[in-house]
Amino acid sequence: MLQSKTFIPTLREVPADAVTASHRFMFRSGMLRKLANGLFVYLPLGLRAFRKVERIIREEMDATGALEIKPSVVVPGELWKESGRWDSMGESMLRVRNRQNGDFVISPTAEEAFTAVVRDELASYRQLPLSLYQINTKYRDEIRPRYGVMRGREFVMKDAYSFHTDETSLDKTYEDMGRAYRRIFKRCGLSVIPVKADSGAMGGSGSEEFMVESDIGDNTLILCGACGYAANVEKAACGPDYTPRLAPETARAAAASVPPLEKIDTPSVRTIEELCAFLKTASKQFIKTLIYRAVNVEADLPGASGEAFFAAAIRGDLDVNEAKLAAVLKASEVSLAADADVERLTGAPLGFAGPVGLTGLPVVLDETVTGMNDAVTGALEKDFHYKHAAYGRDFEGWITADIRTVKAGDRCPLCGGALYEKKGNELGHIFKLGRKYTRAMNVSCLDESGTSIVPVMGCYGIGLDRTLASVIEEHHDEAGIIWPMTLAPYHVIIIPVRYEGAMKLAADKLAAELEARGIEVLLDDRTERPGVKFNDADLVGIPLRAVIGDRNLALAPPCVEVKRRDEKESRLVEAAAAAEELSGLVRTELERLNR
Amino acid sequence: MLQSKTFIPTLREVPADAVTASHRFMFRSGMLRKLANGLFVYLPLGLRAFRKVERIIREEMDATGALEIKPSVVVPGELWKESGRWDSMGESMLRVRNRQNGDFVISPTAEEAFTAVVRDELASYRQLPLSLYQINTKYRDEIRPRYGVMRGREFVMKDAYSFHTDETSLDKTYEDMGRAYRRIFKRCGLSVIPVKADSGAMGGSGSEEFMVESDIGDNTLILCGACGYAANVEKAACGPDYTPRLAPETARAAAASVPPLEKIDTPSVRTIEELCAFLKTASKQFIKTLIYRAVNVEADLPGASGEAFFAAAIRGDLDVNEAKLAAVLKASEVSLAADADVERLTGAPLGFAGPVGLTGLPVVLDETVTGMNDAVTGALEKDFHYKHAAYGRDFEGWITADIRTVKAGDRCPLCGGALYEKKGNELGHIFKLGRKYTRAMNVSCLDESGTSIVPVMGCYGIGLDRTLASVIEEHHDEAGIIWPMTLAPYHVIIIPVRYEGAMKLAADKLAAELEARGIEVLLDDRTERPGVKFNDADLVGIPLRAVIGDRNLALAPPCVEVKRRDEKESRLVEAAAAAEELSGLVRTELERLNR
Repeated sequence: MLQSKTFIPTLREVPADAVTASHRFMFRSGMLRKLANGLFVYLPLGLRAFRKVERIIREEMDATGALEIKPSVVVPGELWKESGRWDSMGESMLRVRNRQNGDFVISPTAEEAFTAVVRDELASYRQLPLSLYQINTKYRDEIRPRYGVMRGREFVMKDAYSFHTDETSLDKTYEDMGRAYRRIFKRCGLSVIPVKADSGAMGGSGSEEFMVESDIGDNTLILCGACGYAANVEKAACGPDYTPRLAPETARAAAASVPPLEKIDTPSVRTIEELCAFLKTASKQFIKTLIYRAVNVEADLPGASGEAFFAAAIRGDLDVNEAKLAAVLKASEVSLAADADVERLTGAPLGFAGPVGLTGLPVVLDETVTGMNDAVTGALEKDFHYKHAAYGRDFEGWITADIRTVKAGDRCPLCGGALYEKKGNELGHIFKLGRKYTRAMNVSCLDESGTSIVPVMGCYGIGLDRTLASVIEEHHDEAGIIWPMTLAPYHVIIIPVRYEGAMKLAADKLAAELEARGIEVLLDDRTERPGVKFNDADLVGIPLRAVIGDRNLALAPPCVEVKRRDEKESRLVEAAAAAEELSGLVRTELERLNR
Repeated sequence: MLQSKTFIPTLREVPADAVTASHRFMFRSGMLRKLANGLFVYLPLGLRAFRKVERIIREEMDATGALEIKPSVVVPGELWKESGRWDSMGESMLRVRNRQNGDFVISPTAEEAFTAVVRDELASYRQLPLSLYQINTKYRDEIRPRYGVMRGREFVMKDAYSFHTDETSLDKTYEDMGRAYRRIFKRCGLSVIPVKADSGAMGGSGSEEFMVESDIGDNTLILCGACGYAANVEKAACGPDYTPRLAPETARAAAASVPPLEKIDTPSVRTIEELCAFLKTASKQFIKTLIYRAVNVEADLPGASGEAFFAAAIRGDLDVNEAKLAAVLKASEVSLAADADVERLTGAPLGFAGPVGLTGLPVVLDETVTGMNDAVTGALEKDFHYKHAAYGRDFEGWITADIRTVKAGDRCPLCGGALYEKKGNELGHIFKLGRKYTRAMNVSCLDESGTSIVPVMGCYGIGLDRTLASVIEEHHDEAGIIWPMTLAPYHVIIIPVRYEGAMKLAADKLAAELEARGIEVLLDDRTERPGVKFNDADLVGIPLRAVIGDRNLALAPPCVEVKRRDEKESRLVEAAAAAEELSGLVRTELERLNR
């Protein structure tokens, strides 16, 4: 492709709102332009790279046996009402009413559409397992779109959904997808961190997020430098330095020598810090008890119908992780209850809640609390606390679970190594969805014995735009992008110092020879100074550069100057051998990444 | 691909609302399912054919030098307000307000987005001509979606937009696009009728529609069996059997011997039929005058500002074509005026309008009227008409134009042959847009002399879904689809009578040999009766079928039965030569269509 025949409007200036490398370079290299906040146009160069991401994903999905389909982008609101997400998706879902007053959704995800397709066709277990996917436009009405396509409103997602007779079959596809995802990111030249993740509003359990480290990441990752343990803080497990979960009777036995529970007067003392000062002890000795309100509770919580209040008790020096708590309750959201609710439910103002004698609402105990048998805690009465509170003896909970926030410096749950934190961006996510959608939308089929069963589902997404931007985040220098060969818009850029005479002939010849070998070539035929062409080539990031100048052509034998974008030094290659040399480099790189 | 590993849910029954062959067969063959009225899901088989249409279009667009880009599907309403189409597009454009109260549009077409992209990058004439295109999701809020994807709400369109310094450059690209379109449809195996068309709400002049004959077509085509003349009735020109347009002075001279204008009493006579009976003459002798209201008038009409009234006069036996009239006035819409407006503007009730003495509003004369010098017409007074009215002597018009509806039986404007009518569906459309968008959206660049110029535009669309459906309309029989090789989801279907033993071995071997030759193979490995498999294969329409049965394998040498979908008879081919034979047939067909 002659550069004058395509459209690569490079920019000297950095767009004012571009604070990340990918945003900056996608604009400066002429890959991308903005139509409005969070809405973009891929220009020819950007689209070439985008299509390569798309092709890699398609190949790896097809290799798992998943089948591509193409639902509409605009889907009927009815389907979302069936699943219940019409109400639970919130304002990030763009809804539209058509001229006949029908409700529609600009798809943010497609569990409903795929479930509807399968529901109508499914009769027998013999049709399962079935994995379907699309690579299609999605829309989420982000309040603050930023970082270019990293957090846009419209984007392209590959989303796959699998349907199974049982969990064993789901497990197999889930593993296949996990392997496919690792291959996809490897082929894109990306270093991803697969982490166990909270599955959030999607429902179900069992999921893995594919993260890239990023200063602008939405997620906090908990990582172990020693063993490679990686988790989203929303789900990071507790390390072995904490007391393991004890059964009530074991705890009770251990509390045999502890003095009996004693109510003490703690006038105007409410916070842990105030208590520590007042009692001259450490926060580790306290049981902190917080009252939460949960929405859309699906756990079998006494008295819960959609919304419910409950208490969460944890060792005083630790923090409750609301995402973990929500997962325990299978709730779509949990948040601290209002002061008035706290008073109504605990019988005391804020600051005096505790698990002992708390009967007005269910208590979730963090595992750490089961190891506490001589603790201080609120006495459900203004200005009073208990001393010598012992789990198993003085109180039990409704449920015991790991609801603690893991922090940098904590010890790794696998190897005991020190954990550290990183910000990360999620590129892909695989979930075991369970039967949430198949139940809500009445999907069933007959099993081998002729009994009606409800299939179990998995879902598997990758954001294409974000993946592309992340590749640039990982592969760039100050001058511009350094494309991995698999995604490069062109493999080789040929720069004649001037596109005339012998240099033009040599450039055209090399381009033709490369193209005959299946290599994608950009030939900079513009009448710009060589410095401008070199800068643009570095900015655009084509992995291999061949410079054709009078002086090197005049050597015996005639030579061209070959340089890798990721190396500083160039070297002379005989012009006659240049095509073979360059195409060899291209193939080697492609094989290395695609292996 | 093993049939058991893909997802081809064929149906015995015809969907109730499927009245056309393409709708029926796309559902029955398992290509397509419906999510809601006008919203569909392409299943794997349908998507394979769809992608082939897409690839052909992309190849031919690229061959013209057009560059593919990918704008968002949701675009800011601001752009549509700039062009003025926010108001003029009407309710078929789906608008949505986001959570920050911004107006957005689900793109029905993309003149605005492309113009905005070019506006921001254009500095010099050296960057022109520039042709950009996308193949992307579009949405039109059809009131009555029907015929499956032939008239859906969401669809995929290839839309290209070209930008030029002058009309000569536009003409060249317009011609290139016309040739590309002819190649696209030929490669898809479609017989299209390129017709001159009214360019409607898109504005500009010079356009060509690519139509297919269809009983359910939206358009009426005027065709000449003798010379191949083809036109949309909205723009079909008048044949040579009508008086050519005369200048006023010529007409005046020809009226020298005509008696002077005479007002006659015609009590209670209003319609042409009543007048014919009353005056015992033919409708050809009357000048019929109708009062119209026009919206968004862009022509230099006296007193018009957006909306205007005017009169249209035509020979009594002919009909005014409102689309041609709207084109003359550059109006987005024309419709007959209300009775009260007629009375106010002509000074008489309905039925007595005429061009003589009509000063209250501009008069558009059909060309036929300029040849009338002894006509009867309304006298702008209740119960009175004029006799002996002569153009040039007794009246002139504001403008003279061809505004007549051409009908079957009229004579061809090119060769004088008899015209006939057909219903047609538009698959593609190429337009010369002029400067409507570049002016409204302030696009400019410097020309060679450093003067600022406004570029001229062309636009070029093809509906992919509709093209695919039209292929099925043209290529099917009672049993199902008969795919042209270029679009076939698979080139060859292999049907072992039973997928076991020697038949399984032979089927697997043939599939492997074909796939090694780059042939796309579907292998029906299901445990169905042969009759079921044959029926499904006919329904799905794979162009070549190889049946592998025990009896033919037992011949010496072993044989398989090969049959073309478009032929009745099968023949035996040596099993050892079957792959070579079948791949030869595939290549021959591909070459014939792609030539």
